[in-house]
Amino acid sequence: MSTKGKVIKCKAAIAWEADKPLCIEEVEVAPPKAHEVRIQIIATSICHTDANTIDPNFKEALFPVILGHESAGIVESIGPGVTNFKPGDKVIPFFTPQCKKCKFCLSPLTNICGKIRKFDTPTIDQELMEDKTSRFTCKGKPIYHFMGVSSFSQYTVVSDVNLAKIDDEANLERVCLIGCGFSSGYGAAINTAKVTPGSTCAVFGLGGVGLSAIIGCKIAGASKIIAIDINSEKFTKAKVLGATDCLNPRDLDKPIQEIIIELTNGGVDFAFDCAGGSDTMSAALDCTTVGWGSCTVVGVKAGDEGPNVSPVKLIMGRRINGTFFGGWKSVDSVPKLVADYKNKKFDLDILVTHTLPFDRINEAFDLMNQGKSIRTVLTF
Amino acid sequence: MSTKGKVIKCKAAIAWEADKPLCIEEVEVAPPKAHEVRIQIIATSICHTDANTIDPNFKEALFPVILGHESAGIVESIGPGVTNFKPGDKVIPFFTPQCKKCKFCLSPLTNICGKIRKFDTPTIDQELMEDKTSRFTCKGKPIYHFMGVSSFSQYTVVSDVNLAKIDDEANLERVCLIGCGFSSGYGAAINTAKVTPGSTCAVFGLGGVGLSAIIGCKIAGASKIIAIDINSEKFTKAKVLGATDCLNPRDLDKPIQEIIIELTNGGVDFAFDCAGGSDTMSAALDCTTVGWGSCTVVGVKAGDEGPNVSPVKLIMGRRINGTFFGGWKSVDSVPKLVADYKNKKFDLDILVTHTLPFDRINEAFDLMNQGKSIRTVLTF
Ligand SMILES: NC(=O)c1ccc[n+]([C@@H]2O[C@H](COP(=O)([O-])OP(=O)(O)OC[C@H]3O[C@@H](n4cnc5c(N)ncnc54)[C@H](O)[C@@H]3O)[C@@H](O)[C@H]2O)c1
Ligand SMILES: NC(=O)c1ccc[n+]([C@@H]2O[C@H](COP(=O)([O-])OP(=O)(O)OC[C@H]3O[C@@H](n4cnc5c(N)ncnc54)[C@H](O)[C@@H]3O)[C@@H](O)[C@H]2O)c1
Ligand SMILES: [Zn+2]
Ligand SMILES: [Zn+2]
Ligand SMILES: [Zn+2]
Ligand SMILES: [Zn+2]
Repeated sequence: MSTKGKVIKCKAAIAWEADKPLCIEEVEVAPPKAHEVRIQIIATSICHTDANTIDPNFKEALFPVILGHESAGIVESIGPGVTNFKPGDKVIPFFTPQCKKCKFCLSPLTNICGKIRKFDTPTIDQELMEDKTSRFTCKGKPIYHFMGVSSFSQYTVVSDVNLAKIDDEANLERVCLIGCGFSSGYGAAINTAKVTPGSTCAVFGLGGVGLSAIIGCKIAGASKIIAIDINSEKFTKAKVLGATDCLNPRDLDKPIQEIIIELTNGGVDFAFDCAGGSDTMSAALDCTTVGWGSCTVVGVKAGDEGPNVSPVKLIMGRRINGTFFGGWKSVDSVPKLVADYKNKKFDLDILVTHTLPFDRINEAFDLMNQGKSIRTVLTF
Repeated sequence: MSTKGKVIKCKAAIAWEADKPLCIEEVEVAPPKAHEVRIQIIATSICHTDANTIDPNFKEALFPVILGHESAGIVESIGPGVTNFKPGDKVIPFFTPQCKKCKFCLSPLTNICGKIRKFDTPTIDQELMEDKTSRFTCKGKPIYHFMGVSSFSQYTVVSDVNLAKIDDEANLERVCLIGCGFSSGYGAAINTAKVTPGSTCAVFGLGGVGLSAIIGCKIAGASKIIAIDINSEKFTKAKVLGATDCLNPRDLDKPIQEIIIELTNGGVDFAFDCAGGSDTMSAALDCTTVGWGSCTVVGVKAGDEGPNVSPVKLIMGRRINGTFFGGWKSVDSVPKLVADYKNKKFDLDILVTHTLPFDRINEAFDLMNQGKSIRTVLTF
């Protein structure tokens, strides 16, 4: 029997407040309104940004909320005006819309879209649908959406500009990573920093995002890729993916940037902060070479103040930029990334260390926070 | 009678210690050694970097020193191995060498040269010649060189990679500005930021460097150039050079970045800090647009900690870089800039507000520090 036009009751993980485990609850998911699509989530993974949002240091967070923004699913029903999707389509929802109409979408210089409304706190942006209401209720209360996705629910509603139809044959338990972590790290190297053949790179933080940045550096032809993490267990995968040197700052008797400068005879061409936090951002800038050193900020940490930027570092030819969803124009790029995975341009399987039933979502958070997983895929 | 091979006694302004007026003294200038050139300085102007160096907050400064790095002169004699210069050549010395041999010079990505030895404190770099000795003595004491130039002396000795031969007809009392201030501001817009036609720009600080950045923005085809200074007397020249809007942060009841964001419907494409200091650098970053906003740091202030860089600003598509001598590869570019001035591509005359005899150098510093001059040219 079709659920089209009806409220769906299903399972979701709700963050009722900061710093607490998520609660598996029954929620009501309203039908999609104009230019909205209701999706059945088949697989969702967890990104550190989900954890940041329930961190008590992240003051702007709104509760109660259904987190999750790295997922893949199947269209259940579409609202009025939706032309690009039909029930049954395999899709990936994402937090970076591409409306194709705003001044940002019309520019080749960025993948940011004007549909993101709160540029200063993008992770709590899109916490309501465009009509300023939520499609979720639980125990009679409206529940906030998260980054326009909210994939920690068996069903969710997203705007049709936050969604791409993908190959019917795609393995949703793998391509869900294209919804955030993989694309963000890989694109940071390919699109934002534009790593060049033969260059030297340093990647700070070897979670799902950092390892994906290594994949990007390798594909771009970097000759030296220095992988840095305070958890040496991350080095095995980093090496498989192309890291030539692995360094744990806690094992060193000098600041990490000094060691990298020695190793590269003056500093790397490209550095990436995929850990988040002033210390790693500052070290990432400092370990780049005079002349053209490029530091790309990918990580964000709740309550963090950002890198320490001495003007002389910049005047000597360095630059810092940042990346949001790896610079990919989402609607255009996500189907291509799914095809690239199918064509074995890169591997996602190695990034999935655990697969768990959705109900065990808090275990998945623990695995991430304890540094034991790269990505845990949750299935319903 | 030729002075070649002999010590020359002449007039120079010596900074014996920080925070004190310069002293006009008789100094001895030794003949040039291998790959060095002795120059008679005909005209020198003053840049704020000279003032920064005697600021008591600039802890790294070395004394006694002969400052000055924005000048033009005539070759008096050459040392062994010098092939590109001969006595009588009109020349401009500069603080950014171009050896054409090091990895930086061989890269199209930068104008920094490996002959700069102290990348972390470039203004006190090149305080001695390559053999680690000085060519200046005064009252029996060796006196430090400054940035490889030391133009506050009637005669100086520079390395042959810190020097360009220019057109015999060049007006040295004007093209001296190409030695630093003009080239640094103009190049910041043209080379470093690469201002695009139709773009919007904001320039903080309307001294010689900032006004030259405005010249660059205008020539690059910017459609809106917002000029910012805490001294409204600077606005007249800014407007003549192409500023479309002039703002004095002290006259506003909101932070300057908010006003600029309103004026440009979201922020400028390109911002330049030509004042120096955390506040203007931070405002320059903050006033740029989401998506592709570019902030170029030109200014430096003694003891300053640098801009406040929130990671979210970067992640939303902004970038910060810096510029040293406006990104010009010096030996190659300076003669072309002199030709461009001759061909009236830009005006230098408007930047010269005062001409004074060299002996009145402290008055020239006062005029700059009191905001009454743009550039004072000193003649011997
Ligand atoms: N800009 C974007 O579009 C975007 C997208 C996705 C994620 N992110 C951010 O990227 C970061 C990484 O996300 P993730 O999912 O890979 O996280 P993760 O938790 O899987 O991995 C983070 C890694 O960083 C390491 N680390 C922590 N502190 C470190 C330090 N001081 N030095 C070196 N390594 C350190 C950890 O040991 C861990 O291996 C997070 O801050 C997240 O919010 C940004
Ligand atoms: N990167 C380089 O290669 C390079 C080259 C030359 C000069 N510089 C630096 O550029 C800066 C400017 O040099 P200059 O010779 O033009 O100096 P200047 O003294 O002639 O001009 C500086 C201007 O900034 C204004 N200003 C000061 N504080 C301000 C504020 N808070 N907001 C707005 N305006 C403010 C002053 O009123 C003045 O008009 C200096 O810091 C200098 O050291 C850098
Ligand atoms: Zn994410
Ligand atoms: Zn858009
Ligand atoms: Zn200067
Ligand atoms: Zn060189």
